Amino acid sequence: MQERQYVITFGCPDRKGIVSRISSFLAEIGGWIVEAAYHTDPDTGWFFTRQAVRAESVPFDVDELRARFAGVARSLGEETDWSVADTGERRRVVILVSKDGHCLYDLLGRVASGELDADVRAVIGNHDVLADITRAHGIPFHHVPFDRDGGEGTDNTAAFAEIAKLVDEHDPHAVVLARFMRILPPELCEAWAGRAINIHHSFLPSFIGARPYHQAYARGVKLVGATCHYVTADLDAGPIIEQDVIRVDHRDTVSDMVRKGRDIEKVTLARGLRWHLESRVLVHGNRTVVF
Amino acid sequence: MQERQYVITFGCPDRKGIVSRISSFLAEIGGWIVEAAYHTDPDTGWFFTRQAVRAESVPFDVDELRARFAGVARSLGEETDWSVADTGERRRVVILVSKDGHCLYDLLGRVASGELDADVRAVIGNHDVLADITRAHGIPFHHVPFDRDGGEGTDNTAAFAEIAKLVDEHDPHAVVLARFMRILPPELCEAWAGRAINIHHSFLPSFIGARPYHQAYARGVKLVGATCHYVTADLDAGPIIEQDVIRVDHRDTVSDMVRKGRDIEKVTLARGLRWHLESRVLVHGNRTVVF
Amino acid sequence: MQERQYVITFGCPDRKGIVSRISSFLAEIGGWIVEAAYHTDPDTGWFFTRQAVRAESVPFDVDELRARFAGVARSLGEETDWSVADTGERRRVVILVSKDGHCLYDLLGRVASGELDADVRAVIGNHDVLADITRAHGIPFHHVPFDRDGGEGTDNTAAFAEIAKLVDEHDPHAVVLARFMRILPPELCEAWAGRAINIHHSFLPSFIGARPYHQAYARGVKLVGATCHYVTADLDAGPIIEQDVIRVDHRDTVSDMVRKGRDIEKVTLARGLRWHLESRVLVHGNRTVVF
Amino acid sequence: MQERQYVITFGCPDRKGIVSRISSFLAEIGGWIVEAAYHTDPDTGWFFTRQAVRAESVPFDVDELRARFAGVARSLGEETDWSVADTGERRRVVILVSKDGHCLYDLLGRVASGELDADVRAVIGNHDVLADITRAHGIPFHHVPFDRDGGEGTDNTAAFAEIAKLVDEHDPHAVVLARFMRILPPELCEAWAGRAINIHHSFLPSFIGARPYHQAYARGVKLVGATCHYVTADLDAGPIIEQDVIRVDHRDTVSDMVRKGRDIEKVTLARGLRWHLESRVLVHGNRTVVF
Repeated sequence: MQERQYVITFGCPDRKGIVSRISSFLAEIGGWIVEAAYHTDPDTGWFFTRQAVRAESVPFDVDELRARFAGVARSLGEETDWSVADTGERRRVVILVSKDGHCLYDLLGRVASGELDADVRAVIGNHDVLADITRAHGIPFHHVPFDRDGGEGTDNTAAFAEIAKLVDEHDPHAVVLARFMRILPPELCEAWAGRAINIHHSFLPSFIGARPYHQAYARGVKLVGATCHYVTADLDAGPIIEQDVIRVDHRDTVSDMVRKGRDIEKVTLARGLRWHLESRVLVHGNRTVVF
Repeated sequence: MQERQYVITFGCPDRKGIVSRISSFLAEIGGWIVEAAYHTDPDTGWFFTRQAVRAESVPFDVDELRARFAGVARSLGEETDWSVADTGERRRVVILVSKDGHCLYDLLGRVASGELDADVRAVIGNHDVLADITRAHGIPFHHVPFDRDGGEGTDNTAAFAEIAKLVDEHDPHAVVLARFMRILPPELCEAWAGRAINIHHSFLPSFIGARPYHQAYARGVKLVGATCHYVTADLDAGPIIEQDVIRVDHRDTVSDMVRKGRDIEKVTLARGLRWHLESRVLVHGNRTVVF
Repeated sequence: MQERQYVITFGCPDRKGIVSRISSFLAEIGGWIVEAAYHTDPDTGWFFTRQAVRAESVPFDVDELRARFAGVARSLGEETDWSVADTGERRRVVILVSKDGHCLYDLLGRVASGELDADVRAVIGNHDVLADITRAHGIPFHHVPFDRDGGEGTDNTAAFAEIAKLVDEHDPHAVVLARFMRILPPELCEAWAGRAINIHHSFLPSFIGARPYHQAYARGVKLVGATCHYVTADLDAGPIIEQDVIRVDHRDTVSDMVRKGRDIEKVTLARGLRWHLESRVLVHGNRTVVF
Repeated sequence: MQERQYVITFGCPDRKGIVSRISSFLAEIGGWIVEAAYHTDPDTGWFFTRQAVRAESVPFDVDELRARFAGVARSLGEETDWSVADTGERRRVVILVSKDGHCLYDLLGRVASGELDADVRAVIGNHDVLADITRAHGIPFHHVPFDRDGGEGTDNTAAFAEIAKLVDEHDPHAVVLARFMRILPPELCEAWAGRAINIHHSFLPSFIGARPYHQAYARGVKLVGATCHYVTADLDAGPIIEQDVIRVDHRDTVSDMVRKGRDIEKVTLARGLRWHLESRVLVHGNRTVVF
């Protein structure tokens, strides 16, 4: 069992003395830093840090730490972006799926084997083919059917409203689109900004949109990839958390590419989700710092 | 659904005219070659080929094809090694496990989603922690407890005899040691030669034997790996089917290495098993040709 | 020293009996096949093969082999695409460069150390910064300055005409654009079709055109890549021979990406060029078969 | 041109307040931290940091900074390991070679193109085949022949003494064994401890010693690798800086493995050397922290 930690993430325009200010604060309250990472982005001029402190070394609880750190943040300028997380609070996750199960199987296997420490509160599918395996893991499955397969004129407003309701009652740290294959409406992108994580089955920005493996095959690429990213209203254009690729060659048909790509999709999603849940991903504009 | 194929694998000392002899035979019987691969090993002087023929293009069944090809093989010398497989016969697999579930979860997920076309007849564990998930997939689980954890003086003869009985009643095409963590006795290595497939959690020949991630950590390597190989009586020294690696760095503890390594173990095992079941792996001495 | 080989490449719409026809022909003339590869593309229905035969096993010269193989090809239909190469004829290469030297240094080093068996006849640059190193390798360097850096209204017709003259006098097997950074005019794309090889500094089709690393940085990708492809009149859209990628993270500035990418560019170009010179690359439409 | 930096590396047994102590010191002297990295090794309980400060933000020179930081270090305990480097002082490098030139060509190309900022003072070879290319880059080449090819009874004491003299007169920051293929005598390992960098042509600890590609071929591995490490008196057992691998398959002969491996050797060596010269590699026992 990992020891309990308080994890501070912080970003602001760079200037002298930030590291000293934060580390002095932590030294004063007796915080034992277990892991610390710093980054200054020369392009935007922003400074970012993530600090993990042993909870037992801090003489008060996370709310008090948050209140005190707010003062530190204020002293470092008006334009800051920060958070304090408590790893003692288990991370709540809701997963959205469609018919393809490889990412769901993989995530459930990781949770079941204790590798991924997450509290999967629910799985929601627009099809029900993955209901049984979900329930075999002791997790509720909700089937929210969609009218049609996403052609023009489709109105799935009601379906999305139901999904939103099912998701929001858990106030999840992450809403995972595990090959959900549906475009979230803008209002949900906004409501879940920084929490909705998608796995796209291509090496973005190549092959945005539908049937990326078919596009990859037609272009004759020699590698196929997968991209784990935050969902924004711009299709497949959100901040990238993680990417990976796998080699293909002329012997691979589209269905071979699909199969090979799945192995990349599932590990890429699992890595991205883990980092998100551990407060390792700091978003700035359309880029991410992954500590 | 993939069309039914007859798959011929053949190896013999190289000489002129082998390709012509085999392709003429196939042309005479009207066989439509869907996939063909050839290899000559300059070191051993052996020639290897794998030919996949559309079953419906052959005017007789697989037994007759096998009988006729025996004549072709005989005409190519006394020292040949060949087989004819029928993809219409589903591949039977038995999986041996211990407590670690990541490889089993992965294989079951692949089978359930239709990605890996295999008939998993049984899972056998020396612990029972993976019984529930196995049965949730509709597959029988057998618990064969071992006396102790493999120290000297342990006699698990009876346990292995029971495992052998449980395995052999299915006459499986593959016996998969999915992190079974036990050394097969020599008589089972021999009985299952060319069918018993192990996943070792290191990049062999580095870190043979127990606790390879601890060994890797102590040595300070920058990549950890996994090796899928046929089991022989020589520990971790059998013919290698597939290997892969993943990057680690100084921030990774042993348990991080274990976690990262799992992702490599499961995909490496899955690839190796797939190739084996598709008759793509030809063993010669301690090396493999993977078509 | 590698033994002399005759290398046959052949493609045509697939049908039964092609392999038998070709291998029977080779058996009849006593040809000893050293390496053979076959591929049927399920999408286009085309069949492809590459066969390398020991020259000394064939009782006549390459012209006679070519003449006889023409008959075999004719017998296999009207729509065929084939070639017969003699590895005894050293491969002539002309390299086009600009100011960035990493790909040129790499190619010259490979040739000098005997790793890449090629006869580099000339290096042509629109700048002369790489003249000295080229000449230190005993290779002529031609400086063909361009009017301006490629803005609109630039007329480099005369410069390209001079380059064409300098290239064509060597009748090269490959014209390598080793970070030449200029768009070939359509008539040269056509004249050198199937021989002009470019290295593009991105994982195509991502980041076509200028400053791909800047584009990659702005998009926040986690891998950067390189693509070796045949040049066509369509910018960065020709058939891909080889691609590779390297991991980057938030700590990498654009210039770090440029540096890391260079390592991928040079090995990707070297691999693609080697395969091309060894007649391993068969182009069909916009895709390549790489045997 | 990169701005001038002072780079502090520091290691000591972990305890509370180290980060605060160091960052306060830097804040007091007005140092602007450009890059900072921290690591605590849970196994050894050691803390490590690397801090790069803008030279112009520090109101005195590097000697004064070093003197003042010594006080900081002392205040953090008796068991510390630290250094302060000035990037304004160009890094001096001496390269040892034998006959294989790929690593030398690669390093010289990187230096010539400005990618690797190093002052290569001399190349020393026990053969002279690489003399011309070295001198074409304007670098002195010294030929120090060895008696025989290293068999038993060989006495190369005099040769190594001459090499030591040639190396030591430059007081180099790095002595690079670029496929030098000779075992350094223990007294040179000691004299150059932490500065002598070797590239071994295998994924250590696999295939220690001679002819690793032959060993790899015989074992039938599916990946070959390279390892950049500090030289110690223990053959191929020094702290690893960087490793990489490349895929091989049954079609690859030993000489193909050698060729493919070279691409990995040269990039692995170049990366390791760069990190060393930038004071990014902190050695502790037999493991490295690479910031």
